[in-house]
Amino acid sequence: MSNVRRIGPSSENTRSAILDLVRSSGTVSRIELAEMSGLTATSITRIVKSLIDDRLVIETGFGDSTGGKRRSLLEINPQARYAVGISLEDTRLTYVVTDVGGNVVGQLVSPGIGQSAPSTEILRIADELQQVFQQLDIPTEDIVGVGVAGAGLDLGAGAERLSLTADEWDSFAVQEALESLISLPVVRDNDAACAALGQFWVGRIPATQDFATLYMSRGFGLGLMIGGSVNRGASSNIGEIGHMVVDIDGPDCWCGSNGCLEMLAAPRAIIARAMAEPGLADDLGLGGDDGRLRADYDAIARAAVRGDERCVALIERSARYVAAAMLSAVNLLDLDRIYLAGPGFADAGAIYVRAIRDAVTRLARTRTIHGVTVELSDPGLETSAVGAATLALQHVLTPHTRAERASARGEIPVRV
Amino acid sequence: MSNVRRIGPSSENTRSAILDLVRSSGTVSRIELAEMSGLTATSITRIVKSLIDDRLVIETGFGDSTGGKRRSLLEINPQARYAVGISLEDTRLTYVVTDVGGNVVGQLVSPGIGQSAPSTEILRIADELQQVFQQLDIPTEDIVGVGVAGAGLDLGAGAERLSLTADEWDSFAVQEALESLISLPVVRDNDAACAALGQFWVGRIPATQDFATLYMSRGFGLGLMIGGSVNRGASSNIGEIGHMVVDIDGPDCWCGSNGCLEMLAAPRAIIARAMAEPGLADDLGLGGDDGRLRADYDAIARAAVRGDERCVALIERSARYVAAAMLSAVNLLDLDRIYLAGPGFADAGAIYVRAIRDAVTRLARTRTIHGVTVELSDPGLETSAVGAATLALQHVLTPHTRAERASARGEIPVRV
Repeated sequence: MSNVRRIGPSSENTRSAILDLVRSSGTVSRIELAEMSGLTATSITRIVKSLIDDRLVIETGFGDSTGGKRRSLLEINPQARYAVGISLEDTRLTYVVTDVGGNVVGQLVSPGIGQSAPSTEILRIADELQQVFQQLDIPTEDIVGVGVAGAGLDLGAGAERLSLTADEWDSFAVQEALESLISLPVVRDNDAACAALGQFWVGRIPATQDFATLYMSRGFGLGLMIGGSVNRGASSNIGEIGHMVVDIDGPDCWCGSNGCLEMLAAPRAIIARAMAEPGLADDLGLGGDDGRLRADYDAIARAAVRGDERCVALIERSARYVAAAMLSAVNLLDLDRIYLAGPGFADAGAIYVRAIRDAVTRLARTRTIHGVTVELSDPGLETSAVGAATLALQHVLTPHTRAERASARGEIPVRV
Repeated sequence: MSNVRRIGPSSENTRSAILDLVRSSGTVSRIELAEMSGLTATSITRIVKSLIDDRLVIETGFGDSTGGKRRSLLEINPQARYAVGISLEDTRLTYVVTDVGGNVVGQLVSPGIGQSAPSTEILRIADELQQVFQQLDIPTEDIVGVGVAGAGLDLGAGAERLSLTADEWDSFAVQEALESLISLPVVRDNDAACAALGQFWVGRIPATQDFATLYMSRGFGLGLMIGGSVNRGASSNIGEIGHMVVDIDGPDCWCGSNGCLEMLAAPRAIIARAMAEPGLADDLGLGGDDGRLRADYDAIARAAVRGDERCVALIERSARYVAAAMLSAVNLLDLDRIYLAGPGFADAGAIYVRAIRDAVTRLARTRTIHGVTVELSDPGLETSAVGAATLALQHVLTPHTRAERASARGEIPVRV
């Protein structure tokens, strides 16, 4: 029965949807909730009471009178619950604790996973989580869970092929291993999906507004939010935009194909060109080896922002490929809103924004029908960690589809 | 309030979902419906009774006993309702009448729209619809509506920019104009979306199984079925795969971009190469002008199927670009099922199937996790017309989201 979607009206779904409306509205009255949801005033009163009893929603003053008694306004109680998000990377681990409003209330950065094997790293992560908890001045019981973000493929049944240097991560069940060490539910998703969810939550985007988040780290990923959920595809591996073919006669890619976006536009390709540029490696102190990838890329990106013309040309070359891929995605999916997130856009994000904006404004098939907004993501550098925390919050507080609940249990989700 | 999704449990949605389960199951018992839907036996009994009263579902014998009384089996009553689908093209108009089972019970083919203006053509279409109705031996009141499929952009508010030769079609409200001439609801969508919906309905695909249909006519379109609905994007213009950039340094496209799939792989590009091949135009009797596009392309495709090596090379060249675009779509959207539909695949479809199958089997990022099925679409040549008819059936019989109802009224739909 796992491939069958349950369609019965679920009170859990309804409650989730109301909480989500309060979250995206800022402040809202019961009458407005009834109008927006199509539910009766009686149902809204009952659901709001349960959310207030649960401290998730608070009454926060009064709105305009409508003739009768004044309408009390509701809003999310940010301090009602907290979650931890972890971003797993070769070069560093980022832990953030966010409240229900998406505000970061705690943070820890530690060395990346590098060449280490999962059996030792997972113990370190559990230790560092304890450190994070101890620093916080909040009741432990208000922490609802831990979300983990990392690049890689979802292999199903809880395992994933993480894009980390040591081979042992190839089919390691991060979620399961971490859950056995800490007494909290653990959920995981890829970094692009987490970044999209972080934007959704922190940016108070309503569930009716779909968008895509392009995530750039060592490679690229595209997170797609459709109807307030991360769209997942047949095996939760949606968004592999790094392997979109942008140059059919282009260079071979490690994936077996050729002319992939990643081979032409990712940090490694940019650094390889920089190393071939006479004098540039010395000027910027580039290492050129894989262990220095993040540092080298950041140096090039910062030099481009300072106006070093050689580096501007390198980043603009990358941005041209990224813009072509995003134009293809806009045409294919009729997108009207794109965010850029991840360390790849930390310094030179503005150059990428300009290139993508130019391409979709001039060239998208729908350009006469609607604009396409292109912006850097709100949560900034820590976007995938913040997104991982909101993944845990959404998982527990607004599990509005059976698919999401199944996914949170580590099953291959039913598509909705 | 138009951007707000109603989330209240709707009895109409539930009834639609149950009818859809019966449709995709073939035969099914009430107990199985309860298991699949998560609804109570009492609810199922009540909903099934309303469907039987409405003649949409019939009892059709008995399944295995489960100890108590034998379970009566249900199935769709194909003859309960009918709809007409129209495929609008430059070179011909195709009308089909299908029953609820997707069976074609009537058909009419007439000359294409060519250079004619909509004001005269729409009167001819209304006339031809009357001819179609008169040939049928079914009660008029059982015809629920008319669906129209055509290539082009949805401009919103009922108008569309149809890809037809005469400029007057640029912002003509086909749906509204036709509705004013006949006494039936008219719905419309692009040909790729209709082809996907036709496959869904005729192929008895369950709503839980997502897939994409690549449609090839003068250009390309990709119809995406997600959760039993056509996915529409920000402005109902999803699926413009013909303007995916597959060669970033490729030739200029009329859309303003360059290296688009359409410029490299569509019939016009294939014919241009054929005309440049010494002797081939004479051998095949090619005209080379735009009015002969369909005939020329069909001649080349048929020669390729007969083994003419020059034509095999031309089609394989096109198929290589199509395969790269579909590999990109598979990676971007994590697809596991692709159908090919439309006149472009009528003769040489097998060559395209082979090229796409080879690319996604060897190269998709998810190849170790799940296979990707690539097949020619069931409804064959008339797939977009059949799909347009099922669009009208779905619109009336299983309007399972508010978005679809809004869309059917010609509003810009809320995304779900």
